[in-house]
Amino acid sequence: MEIEQITSMMLSVTSRKYWQASPCVGRSNLGPPRPSPPVGLNHDDASATTTVSTKSTKTIAQHRMAKRNEADAANPVAVPPMPWFGMDIGGTLTKLVYFEPTDVSSQDDTKTYEEASLLANIKHYLIKNKAYGQSGHRDSHLEMRDVLIDGRTGVLHFIRFPTAQMDSFVELAKGKGMANLASTVCATGGGAYKFEDLVEKEVGMKLHKFDELDSLMRGVEYMEHFNASELFYYENPQEEENYQKAVYQAGAIYPFILVNIGSGVSILSVKSPDEYRRVCGTSLGGGTFLGLCSLLTNCKDFEEALALAAKGDNKNVDRLVRDIYGGDYAKFGLQGDLVASSFGHMNDSVRRANARPEDLAKATLTTITNNIGSLVKLCAQAESLERVIFVGNFLRINSISMKMLASAMDFWSQGSTKALFCEHEGYYGAVGCLLELMKTP
Amino acid sequence: MEIEQITSMMLSVTSRKYWQASPCVGRSNLGPPRPSPPVGLNHDDASATTTVSTKSTKTIAQHRMAKRNEADAANPVAVPPMPWFGMDIGGTLTKLVYFEPTDVSSQDDTKTYEEASLLANIKHYLIKNKAYGQSGHRDSHLEMRDVLIDGRTGVLHFIRFPTAQMDSFVELAKGKGMANLASTVCATGGGAYKFEDLVEKEVGMKLHKFDELDSLMRGVEYMEHFNASELFYYENPQEEENYQKAVYQAGAIYPFILVNIGSGVSILSVKSPDEYRRVCGTSLGGGTFLGLCSLLTNCKDFEEALALAAKGDNKNVDRLVRDIYGGDYAKFGLQGDLVASSFGHMNDSVRRANARPEDLAKATLTTITNNIGSLVKLCAQAESLERVIFVGNFLRINSISMKMLASAMDFWSQGSTKALFCEHEGYYGAVGCLLELMKTP
Repeated sequence: MEIEQITSMMLSVTSRKYWQASPCVGRSNLGPPRPSPPVGLNHDDASATTTVSTKSTKTIAQHRMAKRNEADAANPVAVPPMPWFGMDIGGTLTKLVYFEPTDVSSQDDTKTYEEASLLANIKHYLIKNKAYGQSGHRDSHLEMRDVLIDGRTGVLHFIRFPTAQMDSFVELAKGKGMANLASTVCATGGGAYKFEDLVEKEVGMKLHKFDELDSLMRGVEYMEHFNASELFYYENPQEEENYQKAVYQAGAIYPFILVNIGSGVSILSVKSPDEYRRVCGTSLGGGTFLGLCSLLTNCKDFEEALALAAKGDNKNVDRLVRDIYGGDYAKFGLQGDLVASSFGHMNDSVRRANARPEDLAKATLTTITNNIGSLVKLCAQAESLERVIFVGNFLRINSISMKMLASAMDFWSQGSTKALFCEHEGYYGAVGCLLELMKTP
Repeated sequence: MEIEQITSMMLSVTSRKYWQASPCVGRSNLGPPRPSPPVGLNHDDASATTTVSTKSTKTIAQHRMAKRNEADAANPVAVPPMPWFGMDIGGTLTKLVYFEPTDVSSQDDTKTYEEASLLANIKHYLIKNKAYGQSGHRDSHLEMRDVLIDGRTGVLHFIRFPTAQMDSFVELAKGKGMANLASTVCATGGGAYKFEDLVEKEVGMKLHKFDELDSLMRGVEYMEHFNASELFYYENPQEEENYQKAVYQAGAIYPFILVNIGSGVSILSVKSPDEYRRVCGTSLGGGTFLGLCSLLTNCKDFEEALALAAKGDNKNVDRLVRDIYGGDYAKFGLQGDLVASSFGHMNDSVRRANARPEDLAKATLTTITNNIGSLVKLCAQAESLERVIFVGNFLRINSISMKMLASAMDFWSQGSTKALFCEHEGYYGAVGCLLELMKTP
């Protein structure tokens, strides 16, 4: 039962005795920036922000923080009791973010005892493992230490499991008696809506739902603010060998195009932390890559599909400009090695027989990635924006696509549009959901 | 030898005795509109043009015609000798347009005799057949009677064969002694460049090359001008049953977005007959549809792929919004039955085993078509254009995709953007090439 450990972990910490409101004067879930240097990651965003030369990010952020602090002081509200989870139930993967407090000694005695028990329970299920069965994973390399949420200091943990396991999750929750706890779990993503009735009927538990793009926006704002090494880009992205990953330290990110590549793709135009709109989307996303690769190569999962792609050559599958023109199509600046027709060689039975699974996987990855790049280019042009932030689990361990997107943005914009990527690429919705939880004690 | 008949036809008419320039005072290859009513098709575009109420089409057309007539009168040039062919060598298909003169009796006696022989030869190979081997076809239902080109009246014939047969074409041309004729064949499309050296080296014949998008533009201008029933659209495109094809009689077409869907896709913003630019493209085109269908269903050709798709259900393959959300994603107006992730169900081994070839073909067609629709929507918005004309052989006998594109345009624009389709969808480049030939006697 691969989902059992995750369910047990959540069940162990949702009994009523931990679900009591604790009053907290002054809401600070998004600020101010933590007072001490970070331990786990290089959090020097506050100083980095002072070097900003572009647009108005710092002003907006400062204004928001000041307004929030004023509002919080005027309207003290309770923070929700521990545990603090954020859950993002996507089309393919469910992402879970857990905040583990590390400042227990600074709290009152009663809470210290309760929180110590809580921590022990969670550690038993969560922190001692990296994998839960075959398909549940804790991304321990992503954990963030010394983060500050609503006045508490702690560690953020990142866990994922296939949404196909949600039925097992619900069954286990029911079997283990979660029905008697009458607790609320906060969730975002489509699954928060899809599984709402099932969870309520079977488990007797309410899913507190948050919109996935709102959650995503909150997650981006938080992560960018609290983790100075969160965003990265590629230097010399158009070069085959002499390129390298570099931390984005310019500080300013607003306004930007936000591209969320999950099973499908949403493209947002983000003017400020509070102002965004969905300008475009495509159904050709990570689900398409994995679905097509499964059909074409019989690969068993995303990791295997990517590993195949890394060893493949899409030129054996795709028809290039030079296959049609014999060289470049110079009049419109189309180089000979550009793909003119994805899978265009595959109507030829001989070429079809010779195409290796690796080649088919690489062609699939190239097709999906280039297509997203084309849509993003049009959106960035239409919105006149120079920064594009890519998030979503399609980019997890997917340096091929990140490099391709970076190169495409650089080529099309002649260097003026920068493609930014994120260390916690798939977890922004879950982080945002956890932050939304802070507003609903 | 399926290509042999087409090669023979072209060879039979390119001997030197027919390759003599005949002087012609007054160039009129694009005008004025023919003086008498059409026989084969409903050619009432001249009167239709007078009813135009939108923008500036008529003014531009009249201005162009007037300018050309002035220039032609001032600089009389010779028209090229018969035969008049236009050849468009695309990534997948080669398209051939042939002008058969029907006004032989109105010419001088010598030419009458020669042209009568010519006609006899061509009829022997071309007109008595509809199919040339297994893969060469004459689209007899598309032939246009009583067309006027450079002062001559005749019939336009439309032939296609796979570009993969070009090597056979070259071999036959060499074997049959075309090398001794030193003739020139006019060609456009990528193959005009790719095969140029081979044709010159092997056959000793020059390919007179024209840019494919220029040719396409000339073809659209000509066909729209001379065939009033060329363009059509769908009434009530968003309805499942109560929709119908209707001739576009408004007359005005400029400015518009032109979408050429061949092996790949080019999207042009066309301001006037002489002013256009390529604003976007995608490698996911007709070649992708056929290539992927060949891999996934083992279908043997485009016709079989479409026939499979017509019987399939993409919901068995794609993950819909309601599969993720349980219903609509109302906040962003995404209906439950929209595709959220193309092929998104196919990472599930049970669903994969249950997906029929028909379902996979329908999913492939839906994926490619919807993606083109998304790109076109962004381009039409960016260019603020209300008409979109779709051409290219992907749409041949492909009413599923045409209906989907029409419906998508109507939905996104709330009825303000009209999707227009063309009876001779794949032949515009070849027609344009034939017209360019008129300028190079």
